[in-house]
Amino acid sequence: MQHKTNPYYSPCPVETTLNIVGNKWKLLIISKLLEDKKRFGELKKELSATKNQSISQNVLTQNLRELEEAKIIKRKVFAQVPPKVEYSLTELGASLESVLNSLETWGGNYQKGCI
Amino acid sequence: MQHKTNPYYSPCPVETTLNIVGNKWKLLIISKLLEDKKRFGELKKELSATKNQSISQNVLTQNLRELEEAKIIKRKVFAQVPPKVEYSLTELGASLESVLNSLETWGGNYQKGCI
Repeated sequence: MQHKTNPYYSPCPVETTLNIVGNKWKLLIISKLLEDKKRFGELKKELSATKNQSISQNVLTQNLRELEEAKIIKRKVFAQVPPKVEYSLTELGASLESVLNSLETWGGNYQKGCI
Repeated sequence: MQHKTNPYYSPCPVETTLNIVGNKWKLLIISKLLEDKKRFGELKKELSATKNQSISQNVLTQNLRELEEAKIIKRKVFAQVPPKVEYSLTELGASLESVLNSLETWGGNYQKGCI
């Protein structure tokens, strides 16, 4: 990483990660894309299904755009009618699996009352 | 965990965790308290030191209050003049170390350009 030019850089590694994935929606989007590539509508539906609050079209679009800028996800547009756009994780994005696993493990233990 | 009465509950374990610690400030506060118990002023100073943006008094107060409500941190008030208040992790809060470790490892690898 080029520290001077990278907008996500912080001397603290935890903060560097959080500058990239530091909101709930981004981590949930990555969690869904770890399962499989998804279309916009699928993501919107799935994020709203498990959630206490649903995600608006604008907020999802904004978060997807920021994740694409950070090279965590990529966007594939199919030249067809109606247009089809698929989102998937880049190699960098897929490397976040360990982070998502730790969130899942902790949440599972919390739900079971093990901690 | 009592699902029906727990405001953080989601059927998805990842989301359950994020309902509790799902913003950047909360995770950074927990990261600082994993080192040691801290006073308000110490937290404010340390959070602003490593960060691209500093945290305001109000935002820190609000996040500390929410973490206390979620039983992640506890607040100890010393009866002295001037008043002294110390924040530390509860057992539940300390169990988040694995999550913070995964964020730190990923961030470290990202900084080194290993991913």
